[in-house]
Amino acid sequence: MKEVLIIGIGAGDPDHLTLQAVKAIAAADVFFVLDKGSGEGPGAHDLTRLRRDVIRAHAREPYRLVEARDPERDRTSGAYTEAVEDWRSRRADVYERLILDDLGDAETGAILVWGDPSLYDSTLAVLEEVLARGSARFGHTVIPGVSSVSALAARHRVSLTRVARPLHITTGRRLARAIAGGTGLPGGAGDVVVMLDAHCAFAEIPGDADIDIYWGAYLGTPDEILISGRVGDVAERIRGTRAEARARKGWIMDTYLLRRAPEAGGRPPDGADRG
Amino acid sequence: MKEVLIIGIGAGDPDHLTLQAVKAIAAADVFFVLDKGSGEGPGAHDLTRLRRDVIRAHAREPYRLVEARDPERDRTSGAYTEAVEDWRSRRADVYERLILDDLGDAETGAILVWGDPSLYDSTLAVLEEVLARGSARFGHTVIPGVSSVSALAARHRVSLTRVARPLHITTGRRLARAIAGGTGLPGGAGDVVVMLDAHCAFAEIPGDADIDIYWGAYLGTPDEILISGRVGDVAERIRGTRAEARARKGWIMDTYLLRRAPEAGGRPPDGADRG
Repeated sequence: MKEVLIIGIGAGDPDHLTLQAVKAIAAADVFFVLDKGSGEGPGAHDLTRLRRDVIRAHAREPYRLVEARDPERDRTSGAYTEAVEDWRSRRADVYERLILDDLGDAETGAILVWGDPSLYDSTLAVLEEVLARGSARFGHTVIPGVSSVSALAARHRVSLTRVARPLHITTGRRLARAIAGGTGLPGGAGDVVVMLDAHCAFAEIPGDADIDIYWGAYLGTPDEILISGRVGDVAERIRGTRAEARARKGWIMDTYLLRRAPEAGGRPPDGADRG
Repeated sequence: MKEVLIIGIGAGDPDHLTLQAVKAIAAADVFFVLDKGSGEGPGAHDLTRLRRDVIRAHAREPYRLVEARDPERDRTSGAYTEAVEDWRSRRADVYERLILDDLGDAETGAILVWGDPSLYDSTLAVLEEVLARGSARFGHTVIPGVSSVSALAARHRVSLTRVARPLHITTGRRLARAIAGGTGLPGGAGDVVVMLDAHCAFAEIPGDADIDIYWGAYLGTPDEILISGRVGDVAERIRGTRAEARARKGWIMDTYLLRRAPEAGGRPPDGADRG
């Protein structure tokens, strides 16, 4: 039986790898690496290189590294979900072919995923689509990793949750919609982590809002940037820093926590957590 | 300058440790271990023992292990948040004394935290309270870990997030309130992770709700239990399994994901994610 390991490798620091991930990498015969191609800017290979470094450091020789071109997502489409689903389906084509052609019976293949495979990563869904098609048969195992969310909190030395309070994790697009709708932070939560925000939705938060932001880019790497403060005070600095870094490196991966200050008296604004 | 490392050690599997955590443990001169005491049942020492095993495996000799009694939380109080804040304050008393008395100048102390230190863990807040008091001076660093949330998703091989959709992480108490209030899953999210649920709030979800549950206990340990299915079909089985395991071992740590099925046509119920 073929086996595919989906390995979370942490948020960028090679030392974010877990011992379980190290062992999984050492157990793999083949590594599948999807490459964005040079069309997406001069820095697009950075992440592929980082992944190769991790493989080189921990793989057991002899191993094979099979690269394939990651299909491009239709970023011009207004229908975001459909565009992503179409992209996933084309990714499934790629993995299906790799598993059929480049993974021998009784061999173990590995796919390295940034952060944790369960947070805004498509690999698991893509492999399930491959399985559902029925042509490639394989078992699969997921190795959890340190998410960029955990890395962000650690580097800012903040907790993501406050006593008895929820944490909402969402996208830049949803934050922008909530702000535009005047409904406050999404999810009715005072603590919101925002991912996949290419358009700096945080900058649309009214300047007088009593909300702090903890922002981080390239977390865990030598290029890491951290900025925090009252969102009205630092939003423009984050926007400028982000644009400059993105232009210089050709890519950026960033995320942030928004934290609404508790009301006077220390009670959270949406009320009593009394038994 | 004294240094305190707050080290996330993952959800129960010793191989969840990151290379960064292994190095941090090896760098520590002193480990501070708070012990629940025998008053909390025969299994209360299991977690302390697991932590000691991790220290023994990775610490560099000679090292010191300093144990202290974890203050008990007032579980009879109706005021949950206040009870937790009082407990934190008494924990701060303990850590303050440990750092003053048992950590030498220029020494590094380590506190090992289950899962990830940023999710429903008080250690960071407690140390900040100690710092705010001003008597003990020290630097501190947080090492992120694999959260029980990531471990849960990995073991069930599910993604926590769906395309362009949010994830809400909350407590059993808040889930119970949302169900009782008839407002559906909390946070307006179709994907909700519930932690700290001692009262099986999931069992209050109407049996005909189109919601799946992915439940896990003792994640990453040899005692791991996983149950998933439509919540109406498996809620009683989870409740019974949980009660039996808790009675047998004297303690339980569990968490779960609730996932509302998308409406017919594949659109999530709360609407269009169209640009």
